[in-house]
Amino acid sequence: MASGKKFRFMASIKRKEDAPEFGFGNNANNAHQRVLNPDGSANIARLGGNKFSLINIYHALVTMSWAKFFLIVSCSYMIVNFLFAILYYIIDPNAISGMIYSSELQKFEEIFFFSAQSLTTVGYGRLNPTGTFNSSLASIESFIGLLGFALATGLLYGKFSRPTAKLLYSKNALIAPYSNPRFVDKASTALMFRITNARSNQLIEVESQILFSYNEEVDGKLIRRFQRLKLEVEKISFLAMSWTIVHPIDDESPLRDLTKDDFESVDAEFLINIKAIDDTYVQQVYARSSYKWQDLIWNAKFVSVITQANDGRTAIDLRKISTYEIMS
Amino acid sequence: MASGKKFRFMASIKRKEDAPEFGFGNNANNAHQRVLNPDGSANIARLGGNKFSLINIYHALVTMSWAKFFLIVSCSYMIVNFLFAILYYIIDPNAISGMIYSSELQKFEEIFFFSAQSLTTVGYGRLNPTGTFNSSLASIESFIGLLGFALATGLLYGKFSRPTAKLLYSKNALIAPYSNPRFVDKASTALMFRITNARSNQLIEVESQILFSYNEEVDGKLIRRFQRLKLEVEKISFLAMSWTIVHPIDDESPLRDLTKDDFESVDAEFLINIKAIDDTYVQQVYARSSYKWQDLIWNAKFVSVITQANDGRTAIDLRKISTYEIMS
Amino acid sequence: MASGKKFRFMASIKRKEDAPEFGFGNNANNAHQRVLNPDGSANIARLGGNKFSLINIYHALVTMSWAKFFLIVSCSYMIVNFLFAILYYIIDPNAISGMIYSSELQKFEEIFFFSAQSLTTVGYGRLNPTGTFNSSLASIESFIGLLGFALATGLLYGKFSRPTAKLLYSKNALIAPYSNPRFVDKASTALMFRITNARSNQLIEVESQILFSYNEEVDGKLIRRFQRLKLEVEKISFLAMSWTIVHPIDDESPLRDLTKDDFESVDAEFLINIKAIDDTYVQQVYARSSYKWQDLIWNAKFVSVITQANDGRTAIDLRKISTYEIMS
Amino acid sequence: MASGKKFRFMASIKRKEDAPEFGFGNNANNAHQRVLNPDGSANIARLGGNKFSLINIYHALVTMSWAKFFLIVSCSYMIVNFLFAILYYIIDPNAISGMIYSSELQKFEEIFFFSAQSLTTVGYGRLNPTGTFNSSLASIESFIGLLGFALATGLLYGKFSRPTAKLLYSKNALIAPYSNPRFVDKASTALMFRITNARSNQLIEVESQILFSYNEEVDGKLIRRFQRLKLEVEKISFLAMSWTIVHPIDDESPLRDLTKDDFESVDAEFLINIKAIDDTYVQQVYARSSYKWQDLIWNAKFVSVITQANDGRTAIDLRKISTYEIMS
Repeated sequence: MASGKKFRFMASIKRKEDAPEFGFGNNANNAHQRVLNPDGSANIARLGGNKFSLINIYHALVTMSWAKFFLIVSCSYMIVNFLFAILYYIIDPNAISGMIYSSELQKFEEIFFFSAQSLTTVGYGRLNPTGTFNSSLASIESFIGLLGFALATGLLYGKFSRPTAKLLYSKNALIAPYSNPRFVDKASTALMFRITNARSNQLIEVESQILFSYNEEVDGKLIRRFQRLKLEVEKISFLAMSWTIVHPIDDESPLRDLTKDDFESVDAEFLINIKAIDDTYVQQVYARSSYKWQDLIWNAKFVSVITQANDGRTAIDLRKISTYEIMS
Repeated sequence: MASGKKFRFMASIKRKEDAPEFGFGNNANNAHQRVLNPDGSANIARLGGNKFSLINIYHALVTMSWAKFFLIVSCSYMIVNFLFAILYYIIDPNAISGMIYSSELQKFEEIFFFSAQSLTTVGYGRLNPTGTFNSSLASIESFIGLLGFALATGLLYGKFSRPTAKLLYSKNALIAPYSNPRFVDKASTALMFRITNARSNQLIEVESQILFSYNEEVDGKLIRRFQRLKLEVEKISFLAMSWTIVHPIDDESPLRDLTKDDFESVDAEFLINIKAIDDTYVQQVYARSSYKWQDLIWNAKFVSVITQANDGRTAIDLRKISTYEIMS
Repeated sequence: MASGKKFRFMASIKRKEDAPEFGFGNNANNAHQRVLNPDGSANIARLGGNKFSLINIYHALVTMSWAKFFLIVSCSYMIVNFLFAILYYIIDPNAISGMIYSSELQKFEEIFFFSAQSLTTVGYGRLNPTGTFNSSLASIESFIGLLGFALATGLLYGKFSRPTAKLLYSKNALIAPYSNPRFVDKASTALMFRITNARSNQLIEVESQILFSYNEEVDGKLIRRFQRLKLEVEKISFLAMSWTIVHPIDDESPLRDLTKDDFESVDAEFLINIKAIDDTYVQQVYARSSYKWQDLIWNAKFVSVITQANDGRTAIDLRKISTYEIMS
Repeated sequence: MASGKKFRFMASIKRKEDAPEFGFGNNANNAHQRVLNPDGSANIARLGGNKFSLINIYHALVTMSWAKFFLIVSCSYMIVNFLFAILYYIIDPNAISGMIYSSELQKFEEIFFFSAQSLTTVGYGRLNPTGTFNSSLASIESFIGLLGFALATGLLYGKFSRPTAKLLYSKNALIAPYSNPRFVDKASTALMFRITNARSNQLIEVESQILFSYNEEVDGKLIRRFQRLKLEVEKISFLAMSWTIVHPIDDESPLRDLTKDDFESVDAEFLINIKAIDDTYVQQVYARSSYKWQDLIWNAKFVSVITQANDGRTAIDLRKISTYEIMS
């Protein structure tokens, strides 16, 4: 069917000499596999690396969800607590003075709580260590407790202060009629999608980049190509509202002659890179996402997200970010 | 009245092709609403976002005033303290050993203070938990206390180390006769305002940008335009004194032919972006502000802020930053 | 005497149009006052600012010397300790249970140590609060103690992680014969000084800038001028050894025709800006210094700082950074 | 032997006028000493600096290995603990109330554990200080303990959040036949090596630089030269896979006419600078390494590191990063 046309087209694309490399290689074995995961991470497995180095564990803790993080911290507390309790219990249980118990289980419980009171350094003192071994162990446990909470302090700060942008992307990218006085003779349609800031912080100096990724047949072998698309506006000073990012499909656009079928047959994917400065900590933040050919909508335009708040101020309605209407 | 002239003028403004976008859209429904709030934040409401995500709460705590912050931290301490006290009191009040009381209220008070002593990990020990339930609850409370103070540590550091500039702006912007050898044939007046650093830290590599924002009638509809104004000096290496930021109104300035009435009728606003490096942490800081047409003063010049300190050194008098004198 | 020549010379200096502004104004009232202090801060007093805002106090604590910092932290601990002790003593001294004393002074001492044990949350427990008032006060004191140490944590981290460069500068700047194949026909002498890194961290991407500051008579009034000097090399990738920063005095140099007397009569000062990246935290660091005309040495060259360590490796001897020899 | 040729060649190298300086000087006394250590630090000793300034100690703690760090922290805890114990024991041992002992050694042990309980602020309370001296000392010890753990908090966070890249480099650099349509008439061989990210974080905006370092004879004296090599691609957007960094040996390459023997006789070293952004904290990271002439392999090409994971995803096999095959 259209595949002959497709590869002919592809062969005619001139890769620009100064195009930045994207670093994904040109491997197209699994052509229908996404290049970027929906969360913007690279869809690539790593073999032979050390997942359990201290720094990788720290990175994992900093980037994981809060629920998972608190679960791990709480469990670590319980486990360390328990391990020390076992040590006290096995080696010299009677050197914990002040215990009140009427069964062996209650005795272990008292030792367990003594362990907790040492680890948190609350040290009420009814339960207190006597003898060289237990006293030593208790001083080690308090020391570990303090280091552990020192670590937790860093992790909590690390998680909160990590520069991340949470952007809302329109669910679809649109290909629609387009006219811009500046591009008047060149482009009659454009590829566009829309972003806004999902958080209440301010994003400034926001830059955008679209990479068009597609399969090309070279010497009978499929390879994956990446090409940067020119944007109407590449940078805005302030993401106060929403920003519709537009690639005018002009004479120089690689999308110029592509039909709907072509996008499918070359397994088109649009990789989105957004770069901005988070105003809270004045830190550079990056966000990545991608649209596959299945996410494209023809002949539609976005509905305005601008509305009026109850207090009369201009407002942006985040729930409408993906809303479009088909043009007649 | 002058509105005919205004729109004629506006229509003649050429928007520069390479002008950076400011990201405010061109919505002019509420023409008399400020674009930027006096504190530099965008005057736009957000609907449908999640104000109560953990990260938004953190950002709110980091950016709020110190008074509010300490109030929230103290109240949180009281509330957690109280909630645990209730739990001890309801479930097993007599398992707190060492209480001294002669009434039910005093008993609750003792339990409340036991709770406080656990939460802060001070754990004097006269009051101490016995029994499985209370001991468990107390070890959870100490754990929460430590995490809470770990969080407070991060928040305090976050609030203090957050890169912010506190600039003093002159209350008014002046439009006044101006001569600069470099611009001698081109500009006879200029728009100017003055800034200085309100803090004792050093600001270096200070950059300035003015955006002129005005209404324009296009096809009978009012839209909001933004245009960058060229500055005499865009960057200084060191904000040691004050800096008078000057836009020479030369032949290419969009302000060239505007009268006092015109500024009002197009609802003029001058958006100020200042970018600098804070020398303490060597971090980029941003400050934003705006002048509306009501803030403009004609035919005035700023009075020097340079004076002499008691020790004979050159000094800058921050209290004079807004002082100007009308030129005769 | 030579002042006629000086001003004639000065008048002939063309200020480059694209010269960056330095932000020091052109005030020359106190011509013999340094522009930069030896530590690189601006020699300017500030009147009317709020020295005691929380953020200015924090900045002061972060930038002050370690000795002063520890003194302030220790004193704050003592003072808060003492104030709480006073409150306990005045209002309800007997509600501290467990005190051992035989005089009023010893009683106050016990209360004072109880206060210390609450503030640090060590809470041994022999001394413990009873009664509503003392128990409340003790829970407030522990809370303040924890917040205080949370603050100290941030301050310690802030002080250590603050991006600062400690550079060693040669004590003098030399003006000496110079030949560089690239500048062979243009420059026969050059202004030079030498820097090296005083710390054991690595400085990379080191950039240098010299501003020549001098008095000029304009319409019978002395004003202060700043002009950037062109350097042989403006940036090096790695400050592994020392770096001799050289301004070739070629035909375009403003120093071209200046005699030794001229430097004095125009009150010459050379402002040095160094910008680098500290490899430990990969942070931009800035260092500033200045040479006055009194610091210039004619016809001298720097002695090499390169030597050999005991283990045979190439070594740099920091003690020789200022050493020069007069050329015959 | 070939040395005549070598120096003739060397003399013909034109150093580009805009070449960035590398900051290593041109000292070639110990010609066979590496310029960069394998870990990327400069192979230069420093004499006369103060290794024991607070900031240098902090930097050392932040950059040392985790094992060494924990050893130092633990030992410091033990030593401070012990020193305070000695003070209590010498001056007023009986003022520690609650001790249980039957020998002098046990008495010291009790005092030692009291010291530990004060330092960690666990303060069980069986052991507690009485008397002015011991109470004062104990309040100082708790204060020091808190400051110490405040410091440890900062150090732990500093160690984890420090921006570092861990790159895997191919063990060898290859010189191999090469064809690139863009360079078709100019280069038939190229110098290449390969890098990948050893960690699970993302590296973006990765830039690469090769400096060719060699000996040159000038006026009978050996000096060390540094020259930057042009790369096929200098920057990639995303280091998702591996990156083969290629210097095409074209007509303008300083390596153009060099034989295998020449590389040895000029003691060639290739200094590698990699610059990237770590996506976790969005921080600039730097990595350095070098290849000596002994590490060069002729006529070989790298084996692909791309493979397939068990779940069918594209995968990169880190263990193959150095694998090459000799071309027939």
